[in-house]
Amino acid sequence: MASEVASPRTKADLSTSVTEEYMRIDIGNSLDTVASPGMSSDTLDSLDHQVDAIHTTIGPKIHDNSFGYAALNQLSPEETKQLLDFTEHFSDFSNVLTIGIGGSALGSATLSTSLGLSGHYVLDNIDPSANLNMLTNIDFTDTVVNIVSLSGSTIETISNFLVVRDYMNKQNIDWTSQTFVTTSGNGTLYHLSNKYDLPLLPFPESIPGRFSALSPASLAPIAILGGSVEEILKGAQNGFDSLSTSIYNSPPYAYGAISSELFNLGITSNSIMPYSEHLETFAEWFAQLWSESLGKDGIGQIPLRAMGATDQHSQLQLYRAGKRNLMVTFIDVVDHKTELNIPPPEFEDFDYLSNLPLETLLRTELQTTEASLAEAGCPSIRIELDQINPHSIGELLHGCMASCILFAELQGINGFDQPAVEWGKQALKDILTGKTSSESSSTQNKNSHWIKK
Amino acid sequence: MASEVASPRTKADLSTSVTEEYMRIDIGNSLDTVASPGMSSDTLDSLDHQVDAIHTTIGPKIHDNSFGYAALNQLSPEETKQLLDFTEHFSDFSNVLTIGIGGSALGSATLSTSLGLSGHYVLDNIDPSANLNMLTNIDFTDTVVNIVSLSGSTIETISNFLVVRDYMNKQNIDWTSQTFVTTSGNGTLYHLSNKYDLPLLPFPESIPGRFSALSPASLAPIAILGGSVEEILKGAQNGFDSLSTSIYNSPPYAYGAISSELFNLGITSNSIMPYSEHLETFAEWFAQLWSESLGKDGIGQIPLRAMGATDQHSQLQLYRAGKRNLMVTFIDVVDHKTELNIPPPEFEDFDYLSNLPLETLLRTELQTTEASLAEAGCPSIRIELDQINPHSIGELLHGCMASCILFAELQGINGFDQPAVEWGKQALKDILTGKTSSESSSTQNKNSHWIKK
Repeated sequence: MASEVASPRTKADLSTSVTEEYMRIDIGNSLDTVASPGMSSDTLDSLDHQVDAIHTTIGPKIHDNSFGYAALNQLSPEETKQLLDFTEHFSDFSNVLTIGIGGSALGSATLSTSLGLSGHYVLDNIDPSANLNMLTNIDFTDTVVNIVSLSGSTIETISNFLVVRDYMNKQNIDWTSQTFVTTSGNGTLYHLSNKYDLPLLPFPESIPGRFSALSPASLAPIAILGGSVEEILKGAQNGFDSLSTSIYNSPPYAYGAISSELFNLGITSNSIMPYSEHLETFAEWFAQLWSESLGKDGIGQIPLRAMGATDQHSQLQLYRAGKRNLMVTFIDVVDHKTELNIPPPEFEDFDYLSNLPLETLLRTELQTTEASLAEAGCPSIRIELDQINPHSIGELLHGCMASCILFAELQGINGFDQPAVEWGKQALKDILTGKTSSESSSTQNKNSHWIKK
Repeated sequence: MASEVASPRTKADLSTSVTEEYMRIDIGNSLDTVASPGMSSDTLDSLDHQVDAIHTTIGPKIHDNSFGYAALNQLSPEETKQLLDFTEHFSDFSNVLTIGIGGSALGSATLSTSLGLSGHYVLDNIDPSANLNMLTNIDFTDTVVNIVSLSGSTIETISNFLVVRDYMNKQNIDWTSQTFVTTSGNGTLYHLSNKYDLPLLPFPESIPGRFSALSPASLAPIAILGGSVEEILKGAQNGFDSLSTSIYNSPPYAYGAISSELFNLGITSNSIMPYSEHLETFAEWFAQLWSESLGKDGIGQIPLRAMGATDQHSQLQLYRAGKRNLMVTFIDVVDHKTELNIPPPEFEDFDYLSNLPLETLLRTELQTTEASLAEAGCPSIRIELDQINPHSIGELLHGCMASCILFAELQGINGFDQPAVEWGKQALKDILTGKTSSESSSTQNKNSHWIKK
């Protein structure tokens, strides 16, 4: 019999004290005084009215943990304690191997890479060579395995679990003593946890995978690896507190509303460009959130992933001089917490670099790139964080989810489903089981037209 | 006095024998019988005529090593020998640290990650925290440092070099004995190599950075790390041989021509989706190639980076159901060279996975995803490689560069410059040197509009 943790999510405790400064955004370069297309003050006022109405509608849905909207609620102190009691059982392990795909992997991966937590392995693909390479690099005697799947029946995750279990068995490691399952309902993983008495962490049923970054599904590995779940949740509380009826004092709503309106004006792509290597996985997470939530009914802003300053030497030419169908979202980190100054050079040309903090160079490049886009009329928005720490990451992830939900509401689409992926899943299953269906037939009867030398 | 290597590039030896099968592409799902927009047979014939004319024009430019077009030429056997003699000097080192950014880093990084060569560190950003973390992980006693910059004056590269040199000095390592410079002209790095008698590898002056993946600038680290430069170049020769006057028997030209025509029909984004983790950096390289070469004059197909099968759970919903402004480029690898079968499961639901090779699952997912897009009318093209090895990677990189050059020619743009990045570079330099200019002023006088809680 599997152990269980966490009751259904309840409304977050609003009394949590917050000391750090809130995340803020600078929309100056999205205004029509700079960008074309851009926001006029009339448009902003109109959006402000719409957001007022939407917030009045979705506020109660958040409160009631309605499907999807529940993502904007936080764990209560009791739920948090239950989660930490659960993970305490594994606290002696140095490493966590997360077996999941999509939203079942990206949340915890984003948190661990942002926070620089070492020892987090993520098996989120079925590439035989890369997977075997990862397995041979893991010290399984010191690794807890977390199998994550909302449905409990994700084919890639089941496959990888079977491979990992076999690998552990061959090393004479009792996999049942160091594996836990995160799932909802009664799919295959639920039965697995019952059969082998594996600890079971319920995947919140009211949250789609891509909205689960601040739920136990993503927080459990972080707790085991020594990340501060409490601080992440305090940051998420900051995000919650910054939702209001007006875009003029709600950074998440302002970001969502302006992105949506720019989309209406032909800005069909959105490049997420953090100036911090720690946020590389965050950009992947954002891309999934934006793609799966907003890509439907012929709508959908295509998320790009870029990295400052590196991609100035890769993408900037296109952003500035290509079609005017793209916005850039800069993420500026004020304090990188690492003092690394450029030693004095002996070449006169570069005297100005002498003793310059690398952080200053990085942030100045953000400013000049931002100005460069503005000069060309390309819209951008800057998100500013004081530091990258559990608190700010909690707020950032919460804010992005709120922005995304608002975008969907403004476009009148369901941000919480992903119907278009079902066709391929059905085709795959039918082919592997030898079943003839319209999906399997049209896959196998492809009209190929090969071009060969 | 710095040592030198490699004479100006000469026409590749066309007599090189090739045994492996050529790369091929399947354009079936880009045809108007499947996709909307899609290629009609009339359109293909028209493109075929245009490509005939273009090939007749650029063939001599390749032959003469004209600026940019020279990228499609290969090193001669003599040049290859010179390169290998040069790198032989460093063959006792286990690691290479490449200090470069953009095209000065992505070429070698793509080759080393594709081929699974270990020991390649790439410092291509100025993030203080990430850089310090990398430095502390490198065993500098066993690492050769390669500073790469076409101009020899790239600010991020100079900065990182100064940091690395200081770090090595503090460890009492004679950096001059294990550092070489790759540059052209007489910029700062050239003077550095003179002053300290560092070996100098000329960066080919006729090739822009993003087209340098098959030049000594990218091949040198690969040779030191034990990669087969000869096989890479044989593959590139395959690519060269597959350029012809007809798209019907030239995969690179067919890919470039169809992408360009789809762009004309509103397909403003192109998602590169390899089904191999080894090709993750390749997708970054492709993104730079496509962005900087084609993003100008209001033209430019936005490259996205996706990874199969993982991003089926992240991007597919958008690709299939969003705006019809996107094509997908699948890369299928026939043989992953790793036998990893899924062990028999004890759950009946998944009996069909029993003993299935992970490779088969991965490739079947590619096929079903491809069919899923076709079913929705979304255009895609499949590139097929037998394996990932030096030969196939050489051919793939050559083919992508040829495709890109053809795309630029069809659109009537200069694929080899990147004028739009200059504004930001000037602004950065002016700000750091305290100079007042229109660039520095407009950066510093930003009209901010902050949204805060």
